Amino acid sequence: MEIVEFRPEREQYAFTFGGVAPVRKVVPGTMLRLWTEDAFCGGIRSTADLPSTSLTMPFVNPQTGPFYVEGAEPGDTLALHFAGLTPARGYGASCTIPLFGGLTSTDRTATLQDPLPERTWIYEVDRDRWTVEFQAAASDFRLELPMDPMLGTVGVAPGAGEVRSSLVPDTFGGNMDTPEMRAGATCYLGVNVPGALFSVGDGHYRQGEGEACGTAVEGAMDVTLIVDLIKGGGPAWPRLETDDHLIVVGSSRPLEDAWRVSQVGMVTWLSELYGLDKLDAYQLLSQTSETPLANVVDANYSAVTKVAKALLPQSTAYDGTHQQLREAAAAAGQ
Amino acid sequence: MEIVEFRPEREQYAFTFGGVAPVRKVVPGTMLRLWTEDAFCGGIRSTADLPSTSLTMPFVNPQTGPFYVEGAEPGDTLALHFAGLTPARGYGASCTIPLFGGLTSTDRTATLQDPLPERTWIYEVDRDRWTVEFQAAASDFRLELPMDPMLGTVGVAPGAGEVRSSLVPDTFGGNMDTPEMRAGATCYLGVNVPGALFSVGDGHYRQGEGEACGTAVEGAMDVTLIVDLIKGGGPAWPRLETDDHLIVVGSSRPLEDAWRVSQVGMVTWLSELYGLDKLDAYQLLSQTSETPLANVVDANYSAVTKVAKALLPQSTAYDGTHQQLREAAAAAGQ
Amino acid sequence: MEIVEFRPEREQYAFTFGGVAPVRKVVPGTMLRLWTEDAFCGGIRSTADLPSTSLTMPFVNPQTGPFYVEGAEPGDTLALHFAGLTPARGYGASCTIPLFGGLTSTDRTATLQDPLPERTWIYEVDRDRWTVEFQAAASDFRLELPMDPMLGTVGVAPGAGEVRSSLVPDTFGGNMDTPEMRAGATCYLGVNVPGALFSVGDGHYRQGEGEACGTAVEGAMDVTLIVDLIKGGGPAWPRLETDDHLIVVGSSRPLEDAWRVSQVGMVTWLSELYGLDKLDAYQLLSQTSETPLANVVDANYSAVTKVAKALLPQSTAYDGTHQQLREAAAAAGQ
Amino acid sequence: MEIVEFRPEREQYAFTFGGVAPVRKVVPGTMLRLWTEDAFCGGIRSTADLPSTSLTMPFVNPQTGPFYVEGAEPGDTLALHFAGLTPARGYGASCTIPLFGGLTSTDRTATLQDPLPERTWIYEVDRDRWTVEFQAAASDFRLELPMDPMLGTVGVAPGAGEVRSSLVPDTFGGNMDTPEMRAGATCYLGVNVPGALFSVGDGHYRQGEGEACGTAVEGAMDVTLIVDLIKGGGPAWPRLETDDHLIVVGSSRPLEDAWRVSQVGMVTWLSELYGLDKLDAYQLLSQTSETPLANVVDANYSAVTKVAKALLPQSTAYDGTHQQLREAAAAAGQ
Repeated sequence: MEIVEFRPEREQYAFTFGGVAPVRKVVPGTMLRLWTEDAFCGGIRSTADLPSTSLTMPFVNPQTGPFYVEGAEPGDTLALHFAGLTPARGYGASCTIPLFGGLTSTDRTATLQDPLPERTWIYEVDRDRWTVEFQAAASDFRLELPMDPMLGTVGVAPGAGEVRSSLVPDTFGGNMDTPEMRAGATCYLGVNVPGALFSVGDGHYRQGEGEACGTAVEGAMDVTLIVDLIKGGGPAWPRLETDDHLIVVGSSRPLEDAWRVSQVGMVTWLSELYGLDKLDAYQLLSQTSETPLANVVDANYSAVTKVAKALLPQSTAYDGTHQQLREAAAAAGQ
Repeated sequence: MEIVEFRPEREQYAFTFGGVAPVRKVVPGTMLRLWTEDAFCGGIRSTADLPSTSLTMPFVNPQTGPFYVEGAEPGDTLALHFAGLTPARGYGASCTIPLFGGLTSTDRTATLQDPLPERTWIYEVDRDRWTVEFQAAASDFRLELPMDPMLGTVGVAPGAGEVRSSLVPDTFGGNMDTPEMRAGATCYLGVNVPGALFSVGDGHYRQGEGEACGTAVEGAMDVTLIVDLIKGGGPAWPRLETDDHLIVVGSSRPLEDAWRVSQVGMVTWLSELYGLDKLDAYQLLSQTSETPLANVVDANYSAVTKVAKALLPQSTAYDGTHQQLREAAAAAGQ
Repeated sequence: MEIVEFRPEREQYAFTFGGVAPVRKVVPGTMLRLWTEDAFCGGIRSTADLPSTSLTMPFVNPQTGPFYVEGAEPGDTLALHFAGLTPARGYGASCTIPLFGGLTSTDRTATLQDPLPERTWIYEVDRDRWTVEFQAAASDFRLELPMDPMLGTVGVAPGAGEVRSSLVPDTFGGNMDTPEMRAGATCYLGVNVPGALFSVGDGHYRQGEGEACGTAVEGAMDVTLIVDLIKGGGPAWPRLETDDHLIVVGSSRPLEDAWRVSQVGMVTWLSELYGLDKLDAYQLLSQTSETPLANVVDANYSAVTKVAKALLPQSTAYDGTHQQLREAAAAAGQ
Repeated sequence: MEIVEFRPEREQYAFTFGGVAPVRKVVPGTMLRLWTEDAFCGGIRSTADLPSTSLTMPFVNPQTGPFYVEGAEPGDTLALHFAGLTPARGYGASCTIPLFGGLTSTDRTATLQDPLPERTWIYEVDRDRWTVEFQAAASDFRLELPMDPMLGTVGVAPGAGEVRSSLVPDTFGGNMDTPEMRAGATCYLGVNVPGALFSVGDGHYRQGEGEACGTAVEGAMDVTLIVDLIKGGGPAWPRLETDDHLIVVGSSRPLEDAWRVSQVGMVTWLSELYGLDKLDAYQLLSQTSETPLANVVDANYSAVTKVAKALLPQSTAYDGTHQQLREAAAAAGQ
């Protein structure tokens, strides 16, 4: 397997999907060993570093990429299998940011109240225990939490000539912030432009479902992924597959629309896999759906629909791409 | 422990929270052995029984109760511990109902399209295997699914003199349709009227998160619960506690508001339990929240926020009421 | 024309739709001369009177009624023609109320910020100039505004045995807070229970569309209305007719659902009046709709769809009921 | 006054805000005489032309521009005064488009129903009577409606390096579809990039508030506008000023968030103009707001908040820019 390593210099960070020249061309089947900076561009290093002084808007959520995938054409399906996600720093950081987050007024859920104040928390990483430590700011409370590394942002260039901020997810993926984007998952994205031009970033050492305050335990990440390409069949919205689940992610507002998108996407997928008519698939989903929210903080919210494979008859989505990539990763020692 | 058995006659079904005379008075600490009819009033017995002909609106979702709890006063906390939920029939039923459900237009998400057609599915119960069987209508597809009995509807009489349909959840609980309402859970509800006047119903043998098509695997249920009363401390929105999780349920529209309610409720609860200020509790929740949706189909949607006790320091909510009721149930052979 | 006068004593105020015994029985064709207390139960009389100390929850928004209309049966259409609305006090009052309003967090759009503070404004009424005067609290700014009296709350008893707070509008009407409910308007409501049991209240001397802060220039009102009954044809949602407009009001959340309800209601009405198929009516409405929002502050928001009669061919809705009531009012000297 | 005329060739159409090289550089004070193609790129010419066959996605809603305004820097305020809007064709066209519109399921409000069918209506223009004629497709119904020309789409290049579809409005303006964008209005937009790079398009000969079916009476337009630049003071969201009203447009989802944005924007503006504190401005707006919806069909909905100048004390927004441009247009014979 071809292996490509890439660690972006600061001036190579991509802050948009689309509108950026590719940093590398890769052929399907390539393994990429990447490094991703955290969403703060590394600017939050202590509890004294606050967003208003340590961030330079709009230069947040830097992406590593984009990568041009040889042979990828609009309508195809890009498969990204995450073989490994490993924290690349000894700490993670999280903040409240004025006018951002799910339990505060924002630029869109606009109110006349004063915004919640900003505050920074630093989580020390313990690699041996595979934990991060929460330390309260206003009391002595401390709590060790398991690490559960994930990538908040995975996407391709959007269609229709658009260039979109890395902060707002949509049909092209982007900043979905779903904890399902773990090592072991394969993400399927519809290709919109020649070469697909995918990027990844926004490592989280841990995140709750919904990402209420707007930021996870943010940290630089060492990412190992395998790129694959399936001709045709590009899904309307991002899909994921793990050993255990089929997953569809919808991103819109209000939150019920994001959920509707993910549910209709799963009805479609179940219909394809099992030859069900749409009402039968709707019924089956109604009794088997799991719905861990991804983000309820961005300009588009992201909702997840999952179905456990253990409940379903054997089938192979995308001709077994996930299983093949899983085995390829194992063969490569991941 | 005092034990009260009650199986309502058809004319005793309650179709509202509030506005119904109590069927029994009970003292805190009583175990109730109840039977609940299914949401269809038993009218859907075969795939030929369709909602338009087999249901008599508005007489759906019948509740067993209400029960007057001696000593309960507005502002108190009613605790209902579900010691056992057992399917009381050999089949469950689910339907699509025109203009009802999450992936169709409704009387509120009103569109000009024809509604989705109605269809009924019957799930045979296998008690030995503890499964129900899904049978597709338009193909030969069959699938055995694990049973996971729960109550869709648990609530008290609302405040402000209101009488509310058993179909629409709100601060008083009601038709939240969360799969978390399983045997082993304790539900805490704020008391609004003397005696609390709680009812339960809407047994589901299994339900996906969100209850997309509007109905679960609906079935009559044998319910064993223990009633307890905590003076004062009535929560603004329903809370649940299991051996493994703390849970808050919010019900409103749009779905992000239901989620906000449940998240703010959990921030409040974590603050109470661990002496955290609200920003620290917000941060902690942001990294630990689980969010299995309850319903995205009723006039109010219900969103759930859960935190795993395994992640949190030891603490006792409501002075250990859940654990005490758990033990009392075990002592009573449940 | 039979004339009934009624001014409720304080203990006769109705705080719900449904659940209250009728104060009078009236026959269709009766003119009612009523007095309605303001939404604060008269408790806000100076800028020193603040909601937290001057209101006794949930006893706000008192209604005058209900009235039992002889012959009204479920499925019928109640017509209420407002012949005259005259301010009954020399001042109106408006307040910000913590956790209530459109530009603050609320119990449903829950955030962790401190709520906006409460403040009271008193508007002096000048009957000769037909104005009220706004006086800023934090500066010397004063502004004379035209009076435009309306009723915020008009409704019938809901169906399905419900009793609903006078604060939350729905299919039965209630607290819609549309400035269209002026003298000269006829309101059509679907009857849900024998006698219809309608009430009115919540006089506003003036209100902006949306009622952003949650309260209008609230004031006691002298109300003259004529009751009429049309057998059958009860609309799903409230309709209004004026000399100049056809109007439908939808109440739900999110606001687009309230709007959808009102738009679909108008498509239906235009189809009925002009024999249009639904796509033609949709197209016609798309080019003629006016949409003055009613309230974006209650647990259900209310959106209004209007079409100017001047744009439409002559037609008679409800067999000319509005015109007949208009003439009857004029004949009675209103 | 310098006058620049520009009529784009087909290959010069801009389909995005941002990402397009300017077609002209202009100095502040220039009058532009432009021609804009309709949103269908002229492809819908008869009722037999249907969207699925006559449109080539994503090449819809072509814009005329962008124009580089000399001296415009990020943070400045671009003022565009529309001196004249005149229909440039003898007919307008409107369509239903599958999965687009406010009263159908869409790619975001996703349901499992079949979409509404597509249909085209052609409106003949009568320049003498200044009307368009609606002709029903399914019956003989015809109706003459007054013309009321407006531009659906007016915007500048977005910030943060984004390139955005001309179909979706946001902070940069774009496809707001408000009927307030008539001749006589001045639109104020915050500048995000050097030169502002504004474009205009999407002429409507008439449109209802909300644009329910997703398309207005679409038609090519002759547009005369004057460009002006105010250093600094760029508003967060688009503002408009007419002889009669101050207006703020917000674009987001759900619709209440679009409304909140426009209301908070108006509270800010009133505070600036009259020295009111935010609670006083909130109160004043609550009693004076008008809210004609713009669009409830795009990926972001647009809500409008208007206040009548007749209600307010004299004041000069932006140092009287609107009045000056009005007079300049008059002096130029517009």
